[in-house]
Amino acid sequence: MKAARIALRSAAPLASAGGSPSAGGGRVTREVEHFARYSPSPLSIKQFLDFGSTNACERTSFSFLRHELPVRLANILKEIDLLPSPLLSTPSVQLVKSWYVQSLMELVEFREKKPDDQKVLSEFIDAIVKVRNRHHDVVPTMAQGVLEYRDSSRMDPFINQNIQYFLDRFYMNRISIRMLINQHTLLFDNSDTVGNPQHIGCIDPCCDVVDLVHDAFQSAQMLCDQYYFASPDLKLTQVNGKADGQPIHIVYVPSHLFHMLFELFKNAMRATVEHQENKPSLDPVEVTVVLGKEDLSIKISDRGGGVPVKKTENLFSYTYSTAPKPVMNSKNSTPLAGFGYGLPISRLYAKYFHGDLHLCSISGYGTDAIIYLKALSTESVEKLPVFNKSACKHYQTAIEADDWCAPSKEPKNLSRQSATA
Amino acid sequence: MKAARIALRSAAPLASAGGSPSAGGGRVTREVEHFARYSPSPLSIKQFLDFGSTNACERTSFSFLRHELPVRLANILKEIDLLPSPLLSTPSVQLVKSWYVQSLMELVEFREKKPDDQKVLSEFIDAIVKVRNRHHDVVPTMAQGVLEYRDSSRMDPFINQNIQYFLDRFYMNRISIRMLINQHTLLFDNSDTVGNPQHIGCIDPCCDVVDLVHDAFQSAQMLCDQYYFASPDLKLTQVNGKADGQPIHIVYVPSHLFHMLFELFKNAMRATVEHQENKPSLDPVEVTVVLGKEDLSIKISDRGGGVPVKKTENLFSYTYSTAPKPVMNSKNSTPLAGFGYGLPISRLYAKYFHGDLHLCSISGYGTDAIIYLKALSTESVEKLPVFNKSACKHYQTAIEADDWCAPSKEPKNLSRQSATA
Repeated sequence: MKAARIALRSAAPLASAGGSPSAGGGRVTREVEHFARYSPSPLSIKQFLDFGSTNACERTSFSFLRHELPVRLANILKEIDLLPSPLLSTPSVQLVKSWYVQSLMELVEFREKKPDDQKVLSEFIDAIVKVRNRHHDVVPTMAQGVLEYRDSSRMDPFINQNIQYFLDRFYMNRISIRMLINQHTLLFDNSDTVGNPQHIGCIDPCCDVVDLVHDAFQSAQMLCDQYYFASPDLKLTQVNGKADGQPIHIVYVPSHLFHMLFELFKNAMRATVEHQENKPSLDPVEVTVVLGKEDLSIKISDRGGGVPVKKTENLFSYTYSTAPKPVMNSKNSTPLAGFGYGLPISRLYAKYFHGDLHLCSISGYGTDAIIYLKALSTESVEKLPVFNKSACKHYQTAIEADDWCAPSKEPKNLSRQSATA
Repeated sequence: MKAARIALRSAAPLASAGGSPSAGGGRVTREVEHFARYSPSPLSIKQFLDFGSTNACERTSFSFLRHELPVRLANILKEIDLLPSPLLSTPSVQLVKSWYVQSLMELVEFREKKPDDQKVLSEFIDAIVKVRNRHHDVVPTMAQGVLEYRDSSRMDPFINQNIQYFLDRFYMNRISIRMLINQHTLLFDNSDTVGNPQHIGCIDPCCDVVDLVHDAFQSAQMLCDQYYFASPDLKLTQVNGKADGQPIHIVYVPSHLFHMLFELFKNAMRATVEHQENKPSLDPVEVTVVLGKEDLSIKISDRGGGVPVKKTENLFSYTYSTAPKPVMNSKNSTPLAGFGYGLPISRLYAKYFHGDLHLCSISGYGTDAIIYLKALSTESVEKLPVFNKSACKHYQTAIEADDWCAPSKEPKNLSRQSATA
């Protein structure tokens, strides 16, 4: 199976990126092919905690990361090369690709080094911090590439679906790499900003969900008030199905959950204010937090007018976005502002630990957004894309005739129709 | 494209069903191949109305149906032959198949007959009534075949998906054939039971949605009271986004909408009563009817405890059903009782005119079921399966390796992992 992967793609495309400063094309190709042969190793939140527990061992973490980081970089590099060439050849995508090659080659340097050598361990921390900084602008830069491509070429449904498939995997891969790097630096880099002492790296073993809901809501409310001089209130209901009346806690990455909540609250508030501008008062945004046996669910309901059901999936599209082309590098633009990536990226955060994010909208009424997280930390395992035959297929198979009849726009002439019998 | 279809399948399998009384294998095969070359012609609700309008013409309807009915029968017959042979060879499936062959051959008899001959027209009505009666038990009989198959063979995920794909198309095809037959008999068969004078056949050009909600709710409530000696109340909200405060009407088939509502209300009531048995009073089932620009949406919210998100899709599965094997032909069993087909079939009714049915459930809390219908009758067009290359592919392609990493159950030995580097 794995052997098949090598045959799948000629190595040639990667060599091109070998033009990057630190590496000759041949060597780059060899290393990428080598590490792409491994599947990424998904970690459970429990495993993340073990790395940071009392028997935390920087050497073990180092030994794992010096292999796992190149594996994750190489797996996604192989998919970058499967992109339609007009997109692959945009300066933005080539730049992003060169970052991935560069980072992979720098990490490979640690393959032979001794985990027992403290100097090696601190050099490794410097190296992964450098990687994290280099990749800081990956999302907007890749988004820029897609925009350039969208302006230059005809986007057919197949290519759209192709890009959607890639970006979901590419950004998920990035979330996972940042998670690995952040955990290692937060746990073992004393120079790194000291976080919450209760947290294990960026994981809160006892994350109070309702507190986080309030924080995210207030942050969104501030933005909303600044922009609209008005904002809806929060109406919160919580149901602890495991311990009635008890506060709801979960083992999770608070920054990830905050990201999702903040995004959904911004959307709910914008919709409410704009849809109800003629009403004397704004309907509140209703939030229902429920801890069930399997899921921790957070439902966010607004009365912001909703969207037609057939447009719901577009809200998660990277290529559909109706937002005006954002100005890059502008001081006051937060990352992604204007790219319309808020929802798809939020859904990736939810899916990263095998949760999900659903939208149920009613056109003319409002929208329910539901975040689903695994209630049990043992089920919270990284969801990671793997480069294999199935993945390749998605980039190759063309769209076929629909297996359902297309409704003919103009009414069919039935007498003629019958004549053909 | 169409030419390709003929090459796709050897005609042999169909000949086998030629053993059916009225037809020699060779002729059956020829006719099926001939009519399967045509794609079904989806009708809009507006076209259905035109057939029944003042200039209603039985001859035109006859000329259309004598071709269209065989086309729809032949298209689905081709897919029956693509079923896994252990399922195809069950007595139940062979019986169903023989009904389709029989009906097709009887309808073909009208190919050369004169539409102007009143005798021909009334013979045609007798013929399609005979077809309708013959196919009365298609759903439970096919369901029986799936059960026999499930008991006899190992069901792998691929075969499940295979059967799911087929049954959605097969039952949708059946809904459409019954619609065509009912419209013709209701409009042109004077001996047929006279329906509502305001209706055009089984279509209500001015269907009062809220009235129908009340009817369906009361019917479900009666069953619920009989069984549980208790039932939740209805709490209804309606929002007419087009004409504020006006009643909400739609051009639709009331029996189809009733079927969906009744099914969803039964589920909501059962869940509420069983989940809240220890509560002094039952939470009401909340229904929100909204007429938007594009969608007519009906949301049914219960506090019946919900289901885990990963189990939601199972509720639409024909093979998953946990219900005990139902006793066939038992007097007091309504069709499908116990097959657990209520939800998938209801979703097909919604999709038949390009609507949909979504479930958003929160484990430990409750479920929202949303029926989406097209608000504009011009957009309400039949959604029909067509037998073509793409359809065939679904029965052939095997399931491949997942393109996302499978979370390893037992924690990976990270030091060993790193050793492999």
